[in-house]
Amino acid sequence: MDYRDAFRSALEKVRAEGRYRVFADLKRHRGEFPRATWTRDDGTTQDVVVWCSNDYLGQGQNPVVLDAMKQAIEEAGAGSGGTRNISGTTRYHVELEAELADLHGKEAALLFTSGYVSNEASLSTLYKILPGLIVFSDELNHNSMISGIRAGKREQRHVFKHNDLEHLEQLLAAAPSDAPKLIAFESVYSMDGDIAPMREMVALAKKYGAMTYLDEVHAVGMYGPRGAGVAERDGVMDQIDIVEGTLGKAFGVMGGYIAADAVIVDAIRSYADGFIFTTSLPPALAAGAAASIRYLKDHNEIRVAHQERAATLKARLTKAGLPVMPSVSHIVPVLVGDPVHCKMISDILLSDFGIYVQPINYPTVPRGTERLRFTPSPAHSDAMMDDLAHALETLWVHCNVKRVGGYAA
Amino acid sequence: MDYRDAFRSALEKVRAEGRYRVFADLKRHRGEFPRATWTRDDGTTQDVVVWCSNDYLGQGQNPVVLDAMKQAIEEAGAGSGGTRNISGTTRYHVELEAELADLHGKEAALLFTSGYVSNEASLSTLYKILPGLIVFSDELNHNSMISGIRAGKREQRHVFKHNDLEHLEQLLAAAPSDAPKLIAFESVYSMDGDIAPMREMVALAKKYGAMTYLDEVHAVGMYGPRGAGVAERDGVMDQIDIVEGTLGKAFGVMGGYIAADAVIVDAIRSYADGFIFTTSLPPALAAGAAASIRYLKDHNEIRVAHQERAATLKARLTKAGLPVMPSVSHIVPVLVGDPVHCKMISDILLSDFGIYVQPINYPTVPRGTERLRFTPSPAHSDAMMDDLAHALETLWVHCNVKRVGGYAA
Repeated sequence: MDYRDAFRSALEKVRAEGRYRVFADLKRHRGEFPRATWTRDDGTTQDVVVWCSNDYLGQGQNPVVLDAMKQAIEEAGAGSGGTRNISGTTRYHVELEAELADLHGKEAALLFTSGYVSNEASLSTLYKILPGLIVFSDELNHNSMISGIRAGKREQRHVFKHNDLEHLEQLLAAAPSDAPKLIAFESVYSMDGDIAPMREMVALAKKYGAMTYLDEVHAVGMYGPRGAGVAERDGVMDQIDIVEGTLGKAFGVMGGYIAADAVIVDAIRSYADGFIFTTSLPPALAAGAAASIRYLKDHNEIRVAHQERAATLKARLTKAGLPVMPSVSHIVPVLVGDPVHCKMISDILLSDFGIYVQPINYPTVPRGTERLRFTPSPAHSDAMMDDLAHALETLWVHCNVKRVGGYAA
Repeated sequence: MDYRDAFRSALEKVRAEGRYRVFADLKRHRGEFPRATWTRDDGTTQDVVVWCSNDYLGQGQNPVVLDAMKQAIEEAGAGSGGTRNISGTTRYHVELEAELADLHGKEAALLFTSGYVSNEASLSTLYKILPGLIVFSDELNHNSMISGIRAGKREQRHVFKHNDLEHLEQLLAAAPSDAPKLIAFESVYSMDGDIAPMREMVALAKKYGAMTYLDEVHAVGMYGPRGAGVAERDGVMDQIDIVEGTLGKAFGVMGGYIAADAVIVDAIRSYADGFIFTTSLPPALAAGAAASIRYLKDHNEIRVAHQERAATLKARLTKAGLPVMPSVSHIVPVLVGDPVHCKMISDILLSDFGIYVQPINYPTVPRGTERLRFTPSPAHSDAMMDDLAHALETLWVHCNVKRVGGYAA
């Protein structure tokens, strides 16, 4: 049997659908974010402006964060050297978990190697701890949540229409009243930029005796007076049972976590394979993340600037007649609606205009809703926005993509 | 419904079985490995010698590695800011993957956020790429491999007795001859310290037209003239289809990877959710790992010293009449055979002797085989070994644990 043929045909399928991914080889320059150097396949380079980073606030360049990382390397070395249980728990991990528990007003927090792993491991483990658990999952939940939820049997999981309270209530009402229940949802949905109706969700959870599991990865650091997320902003933080977040986006480093009652955290800590059987985060990452969280707790002006930049970009692109999707968050998606067009526009932006934004194609978003997704940070200047708007206008003419009304069409 | 009760009873179950884990809060000191400071619950501290780190060669303290990390932080900042596809591919990632491909003599390599994720994501994805795939898995394979293999249907996975070529051949012979097949195994099994019969495994794979997937996480950096692992040492590197390794053990940093033919790597890159939907490793980790790999390629004397230290410790403990399990690798397990005893011995070693070694209990090892697992590094001195042997002798008398012959009993 020729295995290579099977791998080749799997790749041909991806190519035929116009969604073969070519990674842009970038090098960011400390202190100059969002500028970076792009290296082409032939080895030549070009300066670009990055418009699609999830380092939403530029904390990956904050000297406070970098100094904390370098100091931890000086003090304790490179890696942690083990799983959390086998020599891999350090002062840095303990302090970061305390910082996270404080951020979310919870008794305890638990670190994972990534946000992906925190969702997958926590959600799959809840089935083990709560026999007969039924999970109600928003249809646009991230792949990592779906992966965890799929650990349950078919009858243990229900998908409700995106942010649709009526549909969610129908499903909750139809489930056995004595079964343990969990509503799993996100606050900010990263590809559309919309936000869950938080108060209504927790009210439904209360009415039907369900627990709540909230993914705030695209909100922590950016919403709420101390950066704990949308639940903090909307005053429902104490009504969320398990909040999940990341250290790899607005906090600028890497890693994931949950925060909850101590007994919940302790049980997940004791049963989650994806937590138990893996090397813990390096001390430098834990130290950098803790410094970043502390900094953002005290610097609300960064969040204000961030929202202003997003609002300004939306206004400019809308004024230019571009199909800006109706985001209520810091994310600025512009609809293209075709994977090949989307990739082509992105390629030209990079090569001809020095503007780097990835095409967002299936499976990240549904087919037919392919888009460019811009993430303006406080460091994106008015001049950069002018350049972007000009480039997009040129390309929209050039490529004959739909303009006003294109989004709804 | 009171959810807290369910979490509490899950924890009580773990406690009742004597396998509730209390993490030791440690702080290693750069340049003084394996010494560290242990912080007790009451905040007081004690100096200890770490005997159970997977930083097997002390590379987490190597100035070459630390300087590379600090330099990358200086140059490029903290986190990568995105998934590999969306702004998270940097020069550091590209160079590290080239370094890994070279190490294993393969066309390409692919980075994951951890060894756990590399196994889980790669193995589960192979079912998608090779329809009808049947996986043959060693019964002692790591949890991360099992987690990936479980993505297949029941009839698509067979477990063979540990390192048992006869049983593996029976299973291979019984499977449809035209079905795609994969043999998934490890080189060094980390809890027993035994090593797979590499030449015989690849011969069986060839005979039955199966691919091979080899986990070398407890071997990379430590075996073979350039540190590519046991497959390099045994001269069968080119007969392994997919090799999986970690950057978090002998290389001293964090992260996981596979190396294989370019077409295989490209297909897994294009289909593996656990690769696609997660923030990439920070540039500093990629830079540190690349420096560590390069260093170990050129410093075979560290591997020689490592093996000498392991042989010396085995000889000393055996001479003291302790039940050293028959390891043929750098891992030195000592059988206890009871989870409560195992935890108690470990606690006393830490508090009374300043010796830190975690009890290894179920589910990491089968019940009844609970053990202490020592990992001597080139930095563990004769004097440290004297202290350890003395402490264990004292405790074995004190706790009335079986001595000679205890392993086999």
